Amino acid sequence: MKRRSFLQNTFLTALSGAVLKNKLLNAAPFSSFSAKGKVVVVSSSNGLRATQKAAEMILNGSDALDAVIAGVNIVEEDPEDHSVGYGGLPNEEGVVELDSCVMHGPTHNAGAVAALRNIKNPSKVARLVMERTDHVLLVGEGALKFAKAHGFKEEDLLTDEARKIWLYWKESLSDKDDWFLPPIDKIPEKYRKMFDITGTITCLGLDLNGNISGVTTTSGLAFKIPGRVGDSPIIGAGLYVDNEVGAAGSTGRGEENLKNLSCYQVVEYMREGYSPEEACKKVLKRVIDHAKLPNLKNKKGLPSFNLRLYALNKKGKFGAASIYGPADFAVFDGKENKKYSCAYFYEWKDMK
Amino acid sequence: MKRRSFLQNTFLTALSGAVLKNKLLNAAPFSSFSAKGKVVVVSSSNGLRATQKAAEMILNGSDALDAVIAGVNIVEEDPEDHSVGYGGLPNEEGVVELDSCVMHGPTHNAGAVAALRNIKNPSKVARLVMERTDHVLLVGEGALKFAKAHGFKEEDLLTDEARKIWLYWKESLSDKDDWFLPPIDKIPEKYRKMFDITGTITCLGLDLNGNISGVTTTSGLAFKIPGRVGDSPIIGAGLYVDNEVGAAGSTGRGEENLKNLSCYQVVEYMREGYSPEEACKKVLKRVIDHAKLPNLKNKKGLPSFNLRLYALNKKGKFGAASIYGPADFAVFDGKENKKYSCAYFYEWKDMK
Repeated sequence: MKRRSFLQNTFLTALSGAVLKNKLLNAAPFSSFSAKGKVVVVSSSNGLRATQKAAEMILNGSDALDAVIAGVNIVEEDPEDHSVGYGGLPNEEGVVELDSCVMHGPTHNAGAVAALRNIKNPSKVARLVMERTDHVLLVGEGALKFAKAHGFKEEDLLTDEARKIWLYWKESLSDKDDWFLPPIDKIPEKYRKMFDITGTITCLGLDLNGNISGVTTTSGLAFKIPGRVGDSPIIGAGLYVDNEVGAAGSTGRGEENLKNLSCYQVVEYMREGYSPEEACKKVLKRVIDHAKLPNLKNKKGLPSFNLRLYALNKKGKFGAASIYGPADFAVFDGKENKKYSCAYFYEWKDMK
Repeated sequence: MKRRSFLQNTFLTALSGAVLKNKLLNAAPFSSFSAKGKVVVVSSSNGLRATQKAAEMILNGSDALDAVIAGVNIVEEDPEDHSVGYGGLPNEEGVVELDSCVMHGPTHNAGAVAALRNIKNPSKVARLVMERTDHVLLVGEGALKFAKAHGFKEEDLLTDEARKIWLYWKESLSDKDDWFLPPIDKIPEKYRKMFDITGTITCLGLDLNGNISGVTTTSGLAFKIPGRVGDSPIIGAGLYVDNEVGAAGSTGRGEENLKNLSCYQVVEYMREGYSPEEACKKVLKRVIDHAKLPNLKNKKGLPSFNLRLYALNKKGKFGAASIYGPADFAVFDGKENKKYSCAYFYEWKDMK
């Protein structure tokens, strides 16, 4: 069986599974929350507080961009979330480097920062890049200087817990260096699980004026090579908005997304008439087909990585898909703020 | 007349002009240069030496990626080209920061560096990111450390001429700072023309095995804010390759490209069956439609910026389009290495 046809079959099987799993989603009634328009906010699984906050602001008249940024700021500032902002896991040298981008539907404008150190809210800096410069993307030292020019204060983003996780990783890397291995039973299981964490938060909002905006923010892949930038701050990869169509955001292995511009393509598929969930699934199928390198496949011939896409269209319909599942995502659906299930291709147990 | 319909009309007029202007291109006979496959290399106007070099290597059996990188290396190392590599114009602080990406069709793999200082050949470093790390994009200080780990030597990339151009720009910025204006007649016209230069080189190659790869490399927008990254190192924006379809590269105002993922979309249109030139024109039309901000329009309501797209498909057909023209691009067409005309929307005189 050729790989392509194998994936094709697995894809179809997974799809039928996904359809069943998402009966709830498809059956969920949408209601216009306001005379002006439907308010919907979509975020990744770690974003239930973000969707809540953003929805409250939008219902009080905020532009979607203000609202989604305020929403993710809660998670950026949370030391307990090790994949975003303050408390995020550092690079291989123990330094936290943050990435974020924002896109504003009505003006089709965007701003982003990457490899930004010492600033807790990269999404706020990304927004200033959009509003106060003729550029879209600032990185590294230049981005830090720009943030400081705008009054952001430098602070140490490495929490004590994030430092410990990094230290255990560093010590257990190899027996060919001079760091002694930590007693393996001393490393809490919850820490070991974070050795290849790829968390991120994305948030997409549809406001009372029918405008759509989005934001994605992350501390990136844990223990990355310094200066590594994933998909999160790249417009088209980690986030895309077309105010006439809808928006998409992503979390997961950024490298595969960078090579496939998944969020851009989700919006393109929605433009062609696909539902948000169908669009996400079609793009993930393409990502899987494009993953030709040996390190991108596991022993079963399945992807060795995960990627998750979230989409929201102009009419307030939403959906998400993940390569591996079950998985969920956070939504304010116009009535309730709660988790919905992602469609998915393969079961988690098949990832190893 | 609404802006959209105005652009529509102008678009159609420009297209008929473009068709006439490109009779030569469309009429040019293609010949298979080898029993194995057609060899074609496409580059921006500053890339005639790059296409020559790459074509020679491919005809001697090189993979397209090796060939296009070797091609652009000539321009990266040329102190006379002020838009790429050594001799490139610096950022607002007088420091040269380089961006580049490469994409390899057969493996759908990619590598990139951005805001890289002191290294002459960012395209070579981009390739190493692809081959020697699990990442796609490294930026700033981290990218420099990585380059040095691989033996690249730091050197001052600011040539004396590039420094002078920067100094004149710096001195003539404002009368509210403490730098005296230089006597205006002392600034050579050729220097003043470079005050808003946005040059870049891109190079796409189809090799004897029918594989396509590409590279884009630049010193970015002259006098940018430090850390600014344009489209050149972003896969999908400054370059995209799908080995089943073709490749596209871009030069011009990177910010508009970052918001529209032009090269990715050119490849998508070619996938749908559009010719390389048609695909480039359709994408530029979309970029123009999306340019809603006041600073992106001139007094005539036309784009205040230029962007140029170059495309090559799997069959060896090629084409390019520019918002403003006339403009040309460099091609090794299987027989000859020479300049071809880009299709374009508006005349240069209408840009001001």
